[in-house]
Amino acid sequence: MSRRSQGKRSWDVRASVLARNTHNLIRSIVENLQVEPNPNKPLIALSVGDPTVFGNLNPPEQVLQAVRDSIEWSSSRGYGSMVGHQEARQAVAKYSAHQGSVTGDDVILCSGCSHAIELAVTVLADSGQNILVPRPGFMIYKTVAEGLGIEIKHYDLLPNQQWKVDLEDLENQIDKETAAIVVINPSNPCGSVYTREHLTEILEVASRNCVPIIADEIYEHFVFAGHEFTAMSAISKDVPVLTCGGLTKRFLVPGWRMGWLIIHDRQNILGREVRKGLFNLASKILGPSTLIQRALPTILESTPQSFFDEVVLFIENQAKLAFEELQRVPGLKPIMPQGAMYMMIEIKMSQFPEFKSELQFVERMVAEQSVFCLPGECFCYPNYMRIVLTVPEDILREACQRIAVFCQDHIASRENINKIGSNEVALANEACETINV
Amino acid sequence: MSRRSQGKRSWDVRASVLARNTHNLIRSIVENLQVEPNPNKPLIALSVGDPTVFGNLNPPEQVLQAVRDSIEWSSSRGYGSMVGHQEARQAVAKYSAHQGSVTGDDVILCSGCSHAIELAVTVLADSGQNILVPRPGFMIYKTVAEGLGIEIKHYDLLPNQQWKVDLEDLENQIDKETAAIVVINPSNPCGSVYTREHLTEILEVASRNCVPIIADEIYEHFVFAGHEFTAMSAISKDVPVLTCGGLTKRFLVPGWRMGWLIIHDRQNILGREVRKGLFNLASKILGPSTLIQRALPTILESTPQSFFDEVVLFIENQAKLAFEELQRVPGLKPIMPQGAMYMMIEIKMSQFPEFKSELQFVERMVAEQSVFCLPGECFCYPNYMRIVLTVPEDILREACQRIAVFCQDHIASRENINKIGSNEVALANEACETINV
Repeated sequence: MSRRSQGKRSWDVRASVLARNTHNLIRSIVENLQVEPNPNKPLIALSVGDPTVFGNLNPPEQVLQAVRDSIEWSSSRGYGSMVGHQEARQAVAKYSAHQGSVTGDDVILCSGCSHAIELAVTVLADSGQNILVPRPGFMIYKTVAEGLGIEIKHYDLLPNQQWKVDLEDLENQIDKETAAIVVINPSNPCGSVYTREHLTEILEVASRNCVPIIADEIYEHFVFAGHEFTAMSAISKDVPVLTCGGLTKRFLVPGWRMGWLIIHDRQNILGREVRKGLFNLASKILGPSTLIQRALPTILESTPQSFFDEVVLFIENQAKLAFEELQRVPGLKPIMPQGAMYMMIEIKMSQFPEFKSELQFVERMVAEQSVFCLPGECFCYPNYMRIVLTVPEDILREACQRIAVFCQDHIASRENINKIGSNEVALANEACETINV
Repeated sequence: MSRRSQGKRSWDVRASVLARNTHNLIRSIVENLQVEPNPNKPLIALSVGDPTVFGNLNPPEQVLQAVRDSIEWSSSRGYGSMVGHQEARQAVAKYSAHQGSVTGDDVILCSGCSHAIELAVTVLADSGQNILVPRPGFMIYKTVAEGLGIEIKHYDLLPNQQWKVDLEDLENQIDKETAAIVVINPSNPCGSVYTREHLTEILEVASRNCVPIIADEIYEHFVFAGHEFTAMSAISKDVPVLTCGGLTKRFLVPGWRMGWLIIHDRQNILGREVRKGLFNLASKILGPSTLIQRALPTILESTPQSFFDEVVLFIENQAKLAFEELQRVPGLKPIMPQGAMYMMIEIKMSQFPEFKSELQFVERMVAEQSVFCLPGECFCYPNYMRIVLTVPEDILREACQRIAVFCQDHIASRENINKIGSNEVALANEACETINV
């Protein structure tokens, strides 16, 4: 038999467009940084949003025991349903009663909150459409959307108003192709916690323009004294809300990849199609580990409130410590968070003329002081840096002192400041705008 | 301030094209079946490819202990690297030495083998391209590909030659847009195990047409006496192979969602781009649970060979039992598998003229005998049904007896057979062809 070659004549295997256009912004930026610490000082990484890395914050015994028990059950080894075990979904519904009416049928268990976000974006937006995300904002949305040809558009948060949404900018960004508005509350990276009134204002914009909301509430309940968390879905009258959450941060087990998506569709706007679409998409990877799914009802029911209170109090105290230390540092302007586990710090770049951007600033701080903060560009927000507040107190104190030394070493005298132009700042801003291209 | 509404004027939220075109074929078919069992007989589900459901097959103590230990380590709670912990990746590389030269850098840990398959398909194929999958074959490929506009094309397996690939058909299906050939070995649903020689023939087709291979080897080592498993990658000289595997079946923990993808690229054809693309895609959901990742090195090293041998021997004995029982049943033709955990059984539909298709056949068998076998249409292969061999011996024996009674009850006398046409069979075949539309 003579063979016909109907395929290619030579090897030419490219990555797909989707793969080529899928980027993890934080990783790309960090990989390109020169982050060789000063060998004489131990590295303090204030960059990683993982509360478990320093070993000072651990999940409560009840959580660990629930999984120990789960190991012994044969039902924790077999496949789950595509969207999760029914009991686990019901447990999430009960745990999420503050979000408004939720049943187990509204819950899809996911492989971490990232997966929930992927499902939410993917079900709502088509190639050529756009989703609105806050600036500054956590950039998993970019990772998930752009490979699929979904455009990311930014709406501004207002640093001088505790990172409230610039409502006018939000509404201006909406166009006919806007498939969803992402609201991250409490915010990563800002640590802001929106009031019920402000959330209502955001909902009004969404309602007026008939755009559903993706509520990224993975930091729900991470709220400092004097502030209150309100679930977006709880106050929505008409706007459909897909809420993304999980065990991740609050239970201090981000690596377990136990997240969920909750469908809030009071007026039946999403209808059967979006719900079915979410189920279809979930069927690709068959959900999170059933070992954790089986433990989930116990985890959610038996973890004492005192555990959460202690963790939040610790973070709040860390926030106060860092704020007090850093507000005295020349050239820096920390913004006190109201929740979550981060603080954004403005770097008054005009006072550090030797650095072209905050990327160079954080690079050099690693080289000299072995302290690594995440540059604002990771959140499309140049001239800022984000620090993580979950590190132990003595380490955070040490880090703040080293940051202060660094700034004192590099701040320009007043006469030098006037020499620099504002070109670099404008360029940095532009870079973030053009990443979408 | 007067508000401008630049969005939509009314609510009209549809699911994305991707979500609408993502289907789980098995679920769609099973959901549409009438599967109400006979209330007088307990249901025996021979349909579910989950070896844990009957409780007779359990993971070895070493596997459970490894996870018990992992719970106590704080490193098993934090985020892993996007592609997995380095030690876990190295452990997979060592465990996979039979696949040819593998290092930890070639391994991407995934949320189950389904996720590995999703990554492999997604990185190689663009919208408008196609991938070739075996018929009959496991249909996760359809679920993963069609939402992205990647076409599924089938190449035939030969039931009378122990499900060997019809090499001529394979080569005929290849066109300029063929991005990958999927080879499932050992096969789900057929249980065939390909010889080194046959795999070489498949590789020759791939090489001649310059098409990479996705080797679905989740059933590796599930091989009955007298047969031998050869990894596709081990004998490829030039063809790049992305091998998908995991703990899932062999360690009897499918629910734990611990899979992996291994990049075999001897001639550096995939190059940096595909490797980077895979890493990018993996960064969307941040890998499998670190609880299992941390346990993985111990799991892979400490599980005794005797455990695997016992499981495979059990399945082989079940296969023999079912084969002997069912080959005596009028109207059925079981095909003895060589591995995996399934058996395909031809239903000579012409001898059961009261049923329009094998779907009706399996439906009625549930209604009358409370035995549920998966219809061949779930694998794009009408007129067959698949049974699972991991059920306990007494249950399998009982199931075979009930199947026999059902066939005796419904088989037509010789004169009746001649009355039916072949229209229905042709229609059923056509349905599978047109699902892609």
